[in-house]
Amino acid sequence: MKNFVYEIPTKIIFGKGQIAKIGGEASRFGRRVLLVYGMGSIKKNGVYDQVMASLGDSGLDVVEFSGVRSNPVLSHARKGIESARREKIEVVLAVGGGSVIDEAKTIAAGVFADHDPWDFFTYKKVIEAALPILTVVTMSASASEMNGSAVMTNDETAQKFSTRSIHLYPKTSILDPTVLYTVGADYTAYSAVDAITHMLEGYFNGAELFNPLQDGLVENLTRVLMDNTAVNLKNPMEYDARANSMWATTLAFNGLTTAGIGRAPLPVHMIEHSLSAIYDIAHGAGLSIVLPGWMKFALPEKYPKIAHFGRRIFSIEEEDDMEAARRGIEALKAWFVSIGSPVSLAEGNIPEEDIGKIAANAATLADVWGLTDYKSPVIESILEQCR
Amino acid sequence: MKNFVYEIPTKIIFGKGQIAKIGGEASRFGRRVLLVYGMGSIKKNGVYDQVMASLGDSGLDVVEFSGVRSNPVLSHARKGIESARREKIEVVLAVGGGSVIDEAKTIAAGVFADHDPWDFFTYKKVIEAALPILTVVTMSASASEMNGSAVMTNDETAQKFSTRSIHLYPKTSILDPTVLYTVGADYTAYSAVDAITHMLEGYFNGAELFNPLQDGLVENLTRVLMDNTAVNLKNPMEYDARANSMWATTLAFNGLTTAGIGRAPLPVHMIEHSLSAIYDIAHGAGLSIVLPGWMKFALPEKYPKIAHFGRRIFSIEEEDDMEAARRGIEALKAWFVSIGSPVSLAEGNIPEEDIGKIAANAATLADVWGLTDYKSPVIESILEQCR
Repeated sequence: MKNFVYEIPTKIIFGKGQIAKIGGEASRFGRRVLLVYGMGSIKKNGVYDQVMASLGDSGLDVVEFSGVRSNPVLSHARKGIESARREKIEVVLAVGGGSVIDEAKTIAAGVFADHDPWDFFTYKKVIEAALPILTVVTMSASASEMNGSAVMTNDETAQKFSTRSIHLYPKTSILDPTVLYTVGADYTAYSAVDAITHMLEGYFNGAELFNPLQDGLVENLTRVLMDNTAVNLKNPMEYDARANSMWATTLAFNGLTTAGIGRAPLPVHMIEHSLSAIYDIAHGAGLSIVLPGWMKFALPEKYPKIAHFGRRIFSIEEEDDMEAARRGIEALKAWFVSIGSPVSLAEGNIPEEDIGKIAANAATLADVWGLTDYKSPVIESILEQCR
Repeated sequence: MKNFVYEIPTKIIFGKGQIAKIGGEASRFGRRVLLVYGMGSIKKNGVYDQVMASLGDSGLDVVEFSGVRSNPVLSHARKGIESARREKIEVVLAVGGGSVIDEAKTIAAGVFADHDPWDFFTYKKVIEAALPILTVVTMSASASEMNGSAVMTNDETAQKFSTRSIHLYPKTSILDPTVLYTVGADYTAYSAVDAITHMLEGYFNGAELFNPLQDGLVENLTRVLMDNTAVNLKNPMEYDARANSMWATTLAFNGLTTAGIGRAPLPVHMIEHSLSAIYDIAHGAGLSIVLPGWMKFALPEKYPKIAHFGRRIFSIEEEDDMEAARRGIEALKAWFVSIGSPVSLAEGNIPEEDIGKIAANAATLADVWGLTDYKSPVIESILEQCR
């Protein structure tokens, strides 16, 4: 076990009927609230009305800032920072999925910065303060509601980078699984792909190949996500399945499953970020394309662990580790296919002739993240496995 | 899944060499530190010197308050409260195991109370404030280093009751597994028994009989504790085994495995509290006596879950649920025997003729906890299964 610091100060309020508590939670931190949301789906599914009613009951002043896109862009976040400064905002409330939460975090930190917020994502600057952030989750995938990370796309450079800070942990996040009833089959699937990929990056890339405590957590949460995603796709309004998926998704990337495994790189996310930065593909869809390809690339070094994964998750009985590992990758791809998530560049409408361009883009992120093993030619060879 | 609030504000600093950070952590909260510890074992294993050096480096004023016994008593905590008031203490630092931490919590809350601290344990009064609490863990079992609970024995009434509050979560806890190298075989075993029992109370007593997400966490952590306890007993200075046990013990009762299962009663703890209140038996030893007896008592209602437990933890292949459940209980008892923890009242030197007296004592706690199903005759019938 490697030394670690585990500090997750976010308060989670989980369950049906809980959105009504957002006003009371927000009022602990200030009166002037910047309400950050996306393209308006929260006005169709009733969440906007629930949030506004609760904020009104608590007598809070609300300034709306909408139009956050999936794969949120820096140019829009800059406008949010201006708005927050102009309106003397005290609390940033994100109502949405990971994209909305990540842009809200960027705004909350950007308000205190005397430089462009992109410097936080290139790690030229460290986040030393942020406005209090609260969230009402409408799409469960990124675990941004319970971690200190944010991912943004610089729409001038087509780079999708991330940052992290203890100041970016939301103070309170409200997770009401009934909100997921209206999430479509595509994003229901992508959500599970994202959460499972989050966990598997740590599972395969820890300092040691095997970590029984953390591995067991990952395997259990992966099975829970697979079992319940099948139910969610069949019956989108079954509460317990949505609830189990929602909570598993949050636990998948809040630091629980990685504490003690050492610093684990995220090569699959690194490469996927380039796909969604260049082609604006849904993050989960990009991940289901890259993950099996990366696993094939990693076979020579990681096959005993990939074999273990195949046995634990897909009950593969093959005794030979390399063969069990290969079957494990195929079983994972088959599961992605079963939930409707793409498993090749072509299925994701990514031109295969762009592999060089994608790899060059991803290499700039590898450089920022200090992943010295992932030069452009290596990334190309991984992308070749994603054809 | 039941609605829940998950809020664990404790910062964990885990690993070798980390005790040196306690001064820096404590200085975030104040200058005048009450150092709470037990009977002096920390002076033998070097922890006291490490803590004092770090507090000195941070320029903190230290007032020592020692002599906390296992199964800590109210009369001693009252003296600690007096000392904290007299010395104008700003931070309470517990260096020890669950007993020391729980008494430190009682002192931290008691300082602000205009009534006897026992009122918190009978739930006549609610804890509304506490001094900041920090811990350096020297015996890993109770998870008190990462939860808001405290257990104290009233030495006038021979009642061992508990209380809880968000204010009782330690601000920072430092867990250095090397500190466990000198923990003897007996308490190494009791620690695992305590942690596993914590988890199984929730596992068997949730609002629903099965909760796949939470059950999987419990099963994994239980296996980790069993596997690593075997190593700890054989080779007490193997770092990774101590580390895995230590972290699993903390996760076993910090709220992770119970979030979403509803309010789960703790009948085994309830009964054991009477054993240690009356006979001053080690808490873990008392639990390994009561748990199998309670499981036998619970068979008619819970046998499908106990069977599931037996299959998942002990690979029992029996198809009949009732028979698999019986074998699961026997396998658990056999495991307790294998680590040297007692499995009958006689082995714990508890007079069997006292069953009525023990049950009457436990019934007063059942009353405080609102466990209306556990009247004295019911508790007697459970204790009959512990012969």
